Amino acid sequence: MKSFELEMQVRDYECDIQGIVNNAVYQNYLEHTRHEFLHAMGCDFNQLRLAGWEPVVIRADIQYRASLRPRERFRSTVTLRRSGRLRFIFEQKLIRLADHCVLLEGEITGVFTKNGRPVAPDPFEKIVASSG
Amino acid sequence: MKSFELEMQVRDYECDIQGIVNNAVYQNYLEHTRHEFLHAMGCDFNQLRLAGWEPVVIRADIQYRASLRPRERFRSTVTLRRSGRLRFIFEQKLIRLADHCVLLEGEITGVFTKNGRPVAPDPFEKIVASSG
Amino acid sequence: MKSFELEMQVRDYECDIQGIVNNAVYQNYLEHTRHEFLHAMGCDFNQLRLAGWEPVVIRADIQYRASLRPRERFRSTVTLRRSGRLRFIFEQKLIRLADHCVLLEGEITGVFTKNGRPVAPDPFEKIVASSG
Amino acid sequence: MKSFELEMQVRDYECDIQGIVNNAVYQNYLEHTRHEFLHAMGCDFNQLRLAGWEPVVIRADIQYRASLRPRERFRSTVTLRRSGRLRFIFEQKLIRLADHCVLLEGEITGVFTKNGRPVAPDPFEKIVASSG
Repeated sequence: MKSFELEMQVRDYECDIQGIVNNAVYQNYLEHTRHEFLHAMGCDFNQLRLAGWEPVVIRADIQYRASLRPRERFRSTVTLRRSGRLRFIFEQKLIRLADHCVLLEGEITGVFTKNGRPVAPDPFEKIVASSG
Repeated sequence: MKSFELEMQVRDYECDIQGIVNNAVYQNYLEHTRHEFLHAMGCDFNQLRLAGWEPVVIRADIQYRASLRPRERFRSTVTLRRSGRLRFIFEQKLIRLADHCVLLEGEITGVFTKNGRPVAPDPFEKIVASSG
Repeated sequence: MKSFELEMQVRDYECDIQGIVNNAVYQNYLEHTRHEFLHAMGCDFNQLRLAGWEPVVIRADIQYRASLRPRERFRSTVTLRRSGRLRFIFEQKLIRLADHCVLLEGEITGVFTKNGRPVAPDPFEKIVASSG
Repeated sequence: MKSFELEMQVRDYECDIQGIVNNAVYQNYLEHTRHEFLHAMGCDFNQLRLAGWEPVVIRADIQYRASLRPRERFRSTVTLRRSGRLRFIFEQKLIRLADHCVLLEGEITGVFTKNGRPVAPDPFEKIVASSG
């Protein structure tokens, strides 16, 4: 298994003066989804860090297709894959429940560092390997 | 003139459990810089909106190269250019003052909508046209 | 009915450099709980505003008793009561699920304004009146 | 010297759907001001923590008197005093520059903990003692 999904709902304080979820808040949604995914896979973010693996995002490429408004519910999906020896990529989507509209598509690239240097993402091996 | 820059400083509450500025907060920095830029150009964000021009980000492609820590000072730069008839692109960088390290490079693509439909970004014409 | 409760869970991005939920974020939790409460009572926050009732917080008195850490689950409770002719008070608590520890007690005082002036909180009459 | 002040400006992303700064964001302003104050006094927040002193807010009593809107500039003032043997209190105000309107008054009570137990706030002794 290398995919995961989560249901969330917009909170009013996440909306800005335009009456829609602020662009930066979507990154909060995406990060939370990745961390819940990792936890479900047995790779808790804070335990990884305590074990000396420091996950770092090196690129976020996000396409905003439609906006979320107060109280709207959405599905947040994520799929993990390797990219080369050091990088891993989370492919993420947010999909509104009411009309199945794809609101956002993002590709978040990360690396693990240990003592400040990038290292092969061993903790992710079993997750990626188990994909069907 | 189509370029602009701003000096900012990390506030402690912007840092997360890793002791560095959270990835989402950088989008706050980038948005703030764009809005200050527009204001300096005579295109205040909220006045644009009141005039019926709704600016919307459709893509954010951000490369995170190094992290910011509490109290660090940085320069935030932005350059605006057209892309096709409807899109405009903000090229943005964050540069640490202490060592001139480029922390982040981002390309933020936007459109203007009027009554829900994309329209040519007339308010930006004079800004882009005035570039040397 | 004038009481309400909600279950929530700490998200990693809500924690700051001390590894605990940042003090400001608790106000997000409290606001979200109040808005969910109002919605459940048939007084949706954004519909109130569209109808010309602008709810405004005039005081927040919050006692922080213990900290929340990443992924901890908690119960957020709220009770509404009138105070004088114009004010209403939300009594709020956050309680950790694991050990029933009361993490926070807050008293949030609000008023409704209409055209900029405080008015009697008519929309809340039926909620408060229905308490047992 | 036990007083300090700072000038700040509202950023658009700090405003919510009501077009004003969100209540929680004021706590960010207050925290940032306290930390800048401590730094100016030679008591940097993160260095205190590294030295084993963990500052914790135990109460925030905030009176919201008027709202801040996009781009408004304001002065943030803070005064520190002892309260009993273990507690210290920051008296804080936000004042709009344009009309000297007092927007917010807050009393933030804190303690220091060491190894999880409250201790006398020695690092603050010289600050409070130096007041005139």
